[in-house]
Amino acid sequence: MADTCLIVASAVAVLVASAALAADDTALLAEARQVFQPLPKDISTAEAPVTKAGVMLGRRLFFDPRVTVDSNVSCATCHQPALYGTDARPTSIGVKQRPHPRNAPTILNAALAFVNHWRGDRESLEDQAEQALKSPITSGLEERDVVDRLARIGGYAPLFEAAFPNDAQPITVKTMAAAIAAYERTLVTPSPFDAYLAGDVAALSPTARAGLQTFIKTGCAACHCGVGIGGGMYQKFGIVEDYWTATGSRTIDKGRADVTKDPADLYVFRVPSLRNVAMTAPYFHDGSVATLPDAVRVMGRVQLGTKLSDPEVNDIVAFLESLTGDLPPEFAAVPVLPPAAVITAQH
Amino acid sequence: MADTCLIVASAVAVLVASAALAADDTALLAEARQVFQPLPKDISTAEAPVTKAGVMLGRRLFFDPRVTVDSNVSCATCHQPALYGTDARPTSIGVKQRPHPRNAPTILNAALAFVNHWRGDRESLEDQAEQALKSPITSGLEERDVVDRLARIGGYAPLFEAAFPNDAQPITVKTMAAAIAAYERTLVTPSPFDAYLAGDVAALSPTARAGLQTFIKTGCAACHCGVGIGGGMYQKFGIVEDYWTATGSRTIDKGRADVTKDPADLYVFRVPSLRNVAMTAPYFHDGSVATLPDAVRVMGRVQLGTKLSDPEVNDIVAFLESLTGDLPPEFAAVPVLPPAAVITAQH
Repeated sequence: MADTCLIVASAVAVLVASAALAADDTALLAEARQVFQPLPKDISTAEAPVTKAGVMLGRRLFFDPRVTVDSNVSCATCHQPALYGTDARPTSIGVKQRPHPRNAPTILNAALAFVNHWRGDRESLEDQAEQALKSPITSGLEERDVVDRLARIGGYAPLFEAAFPNDAQPITVKTMAAAIAAYERTLVTPSPFDAYLAGDVAALSPTARAGLQTFIKTGCAACHCGVGIGGGMYQKFGIVEDYWTATGSRTIDKGRADVTKDPADLYVFRVPSLRNVAMTAPYFHDGSVATLPDAVRVMGRVQLGTKLSDPEVNDIVAFLESLTGDLPPEFAAVPVLPPAAVITAQH
Repeated sequence: MADTCLIVASAVAVLVASAALAADDTALLAEARQVFQPLPKDISTAEAPVTKAGVMLGRRLFFDPRVTVDSNVSCATCHQPALYGTDARPTSIGVKQRPHPRNAPTILNAALAFVNHWRGDRESLEDQAEQALKSPITSGLEERDVVDRLARIGGYAPLFEAAFPNDAQPITVKTMAAAIAAYERTLVTPSPFDAYLAGDVAALSPTARAGLQTFIKTGCAACHCGVGIGGGMYQKFGIVEDYWTATGSRTIDKGRADVTKDPADLYVFRVPSLRNVAMTAPYFHDGSVATLPDAVRVMGRVQLGTKLSDPEVNDIVAFLESLTGDLPPEFAAVPVLPPAAVITAQH
């Protein structure tokens, strides 16, 4: 996906040159279709198939807090349906009040991203879920204790057998992660912008269309492109000036350089998807900016060296609001979990 | 409601004497109708009216974690839809990992109870919500900070104006509590047992009907009576022997005596409603017992001086399972909250 987006990004450069000629809606739609793609129905792959039984199980695991150390944290703690799959905090809080180092991105459409986590140190949703189930911050349990806990909730056994019929030992952290990720791969949110890309020009207001034009013309779409409107490449945060001067960040995060130890990755982060961005404040890897207009201004300044005017910011925000889709019904409505208490040594 | 149940309880004593005569289903239904009542559609009162605008607002507040100290605890933290309005923990964990002293009862049908909290030190759901919004355990904020936080989430203002059109200052902790409680008053779960009380004898299995008979005959219904099948009176926990000998409780809770300072209230607690009890483990004020059969055995032993046989326990559990209703749709599906980040000093 990184390659695709890089190709698209160079296509954008050409489009930017001809943007002044795109005077009418047809031309804008044609431009947009070269840069962006509409959402698929789900985001399964050959290695990560989405099965009905897997999704049914994964949806329950996603909402179940009983397999973390104090039985009070689940995936849904940082990815709350009521907050569009986020926790509305700058950075998240895990088990035993332990701080997570970065902002929780929405889980909606998360499977579109070419890698996971801000620094790209999770290969896939499956990898992310597996590591989260064992992490001291988000779980606080050892792998064997996670499995023991889950096995004690009797109602889960038949769900695992249905989802993993060929596994002699169906309940493992790996199968849990596979099921959770299968569920997450169904959490897609078609938006007015997808209707627009499908040809319904009126799905975007004139202001949003002006914003789309500015979004492409100014260069935002060089990175925020593709089906995710972002999520397809790495980029340095702070190309023109240091990001913390514009965001007021309290600490300086070196980004991907801390993962790869490569100086070329200093302040490099995964470009986030902008789908549902109007519903998922605060912004950036450290949640340092509270509102969308301010986030747009920061981006213009530190990434593009552009001081966007208030009307431009207003238009871009209207475009970004068109990326909000409805919550998937299987996310808005929580499942009933197999009942059972977990009484641990330290209650 | 306490008086009603006491009257019903004395009626039970008469019924118990004639229980051997109630050989057929018609007689059992007639008995049951004297002891129990079906659920109303909602649980509004003259002082606590349930308005559409109030419920709409209260539902959002119920799920919103942003008005507690670290923006990570809401009513739904201890009263999770996926866990039938509980947290499945022996005792709850509040803000900053602070322990709550007692087990979180389900919020479903909670408005039926004559008082709230295990020791009866909350007069109503409105009182409970108001105190929870200011409590160091569940909120961690001062009253004025709660209001400040909420006022900063712009989308709430019109919802408060609609719900409290006559209030010059609509956003207060008191109106928040009134709205939350109005929502909670709609969370009723009609069950197979309600269909039974309405005359559909086949809504209960023969085993459940045998359990109902045993439940009445043995004396359980002396306290677990009325519309809530409990929730209508206080009772000492451990009438025949100390409760902690049977439950294995690690600490001895003096119950209501710590509230009233009256020695007559030693080990006295509010009798809990048994609606949805099969879905709301663990059991008792300290969550010391993990399974429903064990909880039934403990009750027989310490309250009634009866060693229930395994078939009797089995039958009673089948009856108790008939008290499980579907989750109300407006509880199973969470609302989308007005978007906004809360960036506090300590993020």
